Amino acid sequence: MEINVLKKVLSANDAVAKRVREIFLEKRVFAVNLMGSPGAGKTAVIEKTIELIGDKLNIGVIEGDIFSTVDAARIAKLNTPVVQINTGPFGGDCHLEAGWIKDAASSLDLEKLDILFIENVGNLVCPAEFDTGANRNVVVLSLPEGDDKPVKYPLMFRVSGAMLVNKLDLAEILQVDMSHLKENARKVNSSLEIFEVSALTGEGFNLWTEWLIGMANKKSVK
Amino acid sequence: MEINVLKKVLSANDAVAKRVREIFLEKRVFAVNLMGSPGAGKTAVIEKTIELIGDKLNIGVIEGDIFSTVDAARIAKLNTPVVQINTGPFGGDCHLEAGWIKDAASSLDLEKLDILFIENVGNLVCPAEFDTGANRNVVVLSLPEGDDKPVKYPLMFRVSGAMLVNKLDLAEILQVDMSHLKENARKVNSSLEIFEVSALTGEGFNLWTEWLIGMANKKSVK
Repeated sequence: MEINVLKKVLSANDAVAKRVREIFLEKRVFAVNLMGSPGAGKTAVIEKTIELIGDKLNIGVIEGDIFSTVDAARIAKLNTPVVQINTGPFGGDCHLEAGWIKDAASSLDLEKLDILFIENVGNLVCPAEFDTGANRNVVVLSLPEGDDKPVKYPLMFRVSGAMLVNKLDLAEILQVDMSHLKENARKVNSSLEIFEVSALTGEGFNLWTEWLIGMANKKSVK
Repeated sequence: MEINVLKKVLSANDAVAKRVREIFLEKRVFAVNLMGSPGAGKTAVIEKTIELIGDKLNIGVIEGDIFSTVDAARIAKLNTPVVQINTGPFGGDCHLEAGWIKDAASSLDLEKLDILFIENVGNLVCPAEFDTGANRNVVVLSLPEGDDKPVKYPLMFRVSGAMLVNKLDLAEILQVDMSHLKENARKVNSSLEIFEVSALTGEGFNLWTEWLIGMANKKSVK
């Protein structure tokens, strides 16, 4: 019986997600659903991206957290439009759903945006199960998390179009085997775009921002 | 309606968790439910603990993962009894439930164990919502995750009796504000025991293993 209920919840979410994606298409905004473990550096990636291409493209952010407005406050400091979703009052959900994105997006002036980052709740499992209506899913995996994560949490890497391997500045000290990490990720998703970055130093952000700008310029991304 | 179903699931789990805890008490084994984000170092903490006190106390491990037996293989190498639970075939659940612990524990010789580690699925949200039947919840938070995690994921820190702050070896390079991290954690749970450790170097493990041995020797921990 529980499984039936879950199916209903998921298919209801899918219908809303489809509508949200249509809205982003109409408004010609490229929406990126940024997912990853707590502390992988999702907010730092958004901050650095705004710093590097915020003068070329208009960027907006939807912040998802169970509690607190810590992340939204960081984005607001950069004079970037931001909306915070707190799932705490709704049962402390471990992911964002399309309906909340629809509500949050309606309070942003989408006409004026080129890119909308949706920063999901820090979690390598649940957010992968719910379509937010974004045009692309992107997973941020940080080096300290280890090279086995794609094998242990495959769905996240399967539903993502790109992976940012973050905290590259720690590569030497951590001695992570980058080729093994990439191999593990491509085993799960052979078409995954991979960007090796450090949101601290900005290393590797040129390829990531090029990809983003290319996507935003297409504007017809489904 | 979904909320009613959820309540039923949770209360059914609570009843099983109560029975599991009785079993641990009868068998005089101290069961620790180890939780934390993916890559926080839960398995490494168990490995180092076995290395340091495995000759004094008999330790067993239940490994919880959505997929793979990567972690169980690491524990088995240490000649430690280990059972792997994969939640993948059961819908890819992001947490362990008491019923699975009951099944897994039945395949271990509990009479011979002093300590049973239950390594939960890497996730700072969902596992906190489900009582596994363990005697104590312990959260592993690694320094690279940042000092704001207790504020953003408060339930995890509220249900835990102790917190291991892991990857202390990276403290200097990361410049994390440890006092701010502790302050954030104690805001959520004023009675939280805090151990600062490095599972890589073994730093700080003396206090953690003392605490564990003390708990195991009590044997009547509820």
